Amino acid sequence: MTEHARTPVTVIGLGSMGTALAGAFVAAGHPTTVWNRTAARAAPLVAKGAVHAAAIEDAIAASPLVIACLTTYDDTVAALAPAGPALRGRALVTLNSGSPAGAREMAAWAGGHGARFLDGAVKDVPPAVGKPGTLLYYAGDKAVFDEHRTTLEVLGGDTVHLGDEPDLAALYEMAVGGTLLPALVGFFQGAAAVQARGLDASTLVRFTVKWFEMIGSVLPVFAREIDSGDYTKPMSTVALFLAGAAHDAELGAEANIDVSWQAPFHELLQRAVDAGHADHSIAALTEVLKKPAPAS
Amino acid sequence: MTEHARTPVTVIGLGSMGTALAGAFVAAGHPTTVWNRTAARAAPLVAKGAVHAAAIEDAIAASPLVIACLTTYDDTVAALAPAGPALRGRALVTLNSGSPAGAREMAAWAGGHGARFLDGAVKDVPPAVGKPGTLLYYAGDKAVFDEHRTTLEVLGGDTVHLGDEPDLAALYEMAVGGTLLPALVGFFQGAAAVQARGLDASTLVRFTVKWFEMIGSVLPVFAREIDSGDYTKPMSTVALFLAGAAHDAELGAEANIDVSWQAPFHELLQRAVDAGHADHSIAALTEVLKKPAPAS
Repeated sequence: MTEHARTPVTVIGLGSMGTALAGAFVAAGHPTTVWNRTAARAAPLVAKGAVHAAAIEDAIAASPLVIACLTTYDDTVAALAPAGPALRGRALVTLNSGSPAGAREMAAWAGGHGARFLDGAVKDVPPAVGKPGTLLYYAGDKAVFDEHRTTLEVLGGDTVHLGDEPDLAALYEMAVGGTLLPALVGFFQGAAAVQARGLDASTLVRFTVKWFEMIGSVLPVFAREIDSGDYTKPMSTVALFLAGAAHDAELGAEANIDVSWQAPFHELLQRAVDAGHADHSIAALTEVLKKPAPAS
Repeated sequence: MTEHARTPVTVIGLGSMGTALAGAFVAAGHPTTVWNRTAARAAPLVAKGAVHAAAIEDAIAASPLVIACLTTYDDTVAALAPAGPALRGRALVTLNSGSPAGAREMAAWAGGHGARFLDGAVKDVPPAVGKPGTLLYYAGDKAVFDEHRTTLEVLGGDTVHLGDEPDLAALYEMAVGGTLLPALVGFFQGAAAVQARGLDASTLVRFTVKWFEMIGSVLPVFAREIDSGDYTKPMSTVALFLAGAAHDAELGAEANIDVSWQAPFHELLQRAVDAGHADHSIAALTEVLKKPAPAS
């Protein structure tokens, strides 16, 4: 291999994300081997120049860098287990969702088979793979990250190593990802509300996108409050949010929408008020979410 | 008044947003009159060139365009009521949160006093007032909007008229704003999770900001699904989200966080599955949020 040759890469699992990852490697000129339980999914990639390995052992043997993109850690272990010995000395990177505990078990399993291990997450949709601004973060063996950094950057220009502990990417994945479903349900409720008025949900999109930008712009302030534990210089108070909660029921009545999913938010606000946070920053809800330490 | 003179403007209510609005008008060279129940709040604006009217009648009489920025419609009516006759022929613009029903009542009250009426919303934080990208939308008398558009654009370059019905801004306000608290609580939970690991909440911010950009990028797809009612070509399915819900409890256990606020989201997913949406787009949750029409 000459200095400028591209590192051979293997991609295990060809769902929409795995297919996007493999496609990016092929497009960037990496010798790319793919494997999928249902082999037919490999055909479009093979047409572009990827090699499909019929046996997973051969897929793993083909490349120093093996990227597994299955649904869960359990799925990953199930797929890789028959080819365990082939993993020795390989750099194994998992890109699936799961808990920090799952990532730790995965790391132990990989280590037990002599693989060097990184766990990561693609923080975007499949069509964004390969773009300069696309974020992927990784945790685990820093030497693997450094060695393959240029190759990993093929998947997205914003490629980050969070730390050596192999469960950090899963931790951040959950910490970041926890906004997705609540934000989407908020949007869907809004869509139902404008539809009830005979308007298109699409009319809401540009306003909501700007609203997310606004929310993003205030997060540094809230994060500083949370890090300092000082909620006494509020931009927006718990009491103000609680006052606004009354409007939720009005929207439900106005548009014939089930707004009962919002009840826990109102309860959190009330618990924060009860804990003395009424005139504190809304970020004080963070303290309400923390359970008391178990009695020792 | 020469053709190029700035329209005199009155701002009623000097909370942080009202103060920002009045400050933007002063900075843009508009003769600006302000009124606040607690007069002391006017001092910084007076120092910059605003005029403080001791009586609300005088504040209203001072300008053809009167902007009320109080907390609720009820607060607005309570403040304006003693000066009702002064409103005749004025353009009254309310910029407060509230329900569509509240906006309709406000419009009727304003019309009853001979005022021409717009209701609007500032879709950003006070420090963003006056910037080119800042969004404000209005609904109600289009002639008022057209006449004062240049003046209203002083408050934010992205200034939109939604329609003649005076409650449309309140409707969009609720439809857009419904994502705020859920998204923030998701972020606060993540902050608590990284803190439990001894990491700063601030480390989460840049990832979450990018995550909101990702969410924004997929909303047009979801909106098209909702508008067409066709959820059968999913980017991400209800079943996939329901499978991921299991991780919420794991995060709670990992970081000693109260994740019970997420239960209604899991219930919504389950109800969507029960309604046959398992393999449909997550946007099908919109249908689950719609209550059946009342029996006639």
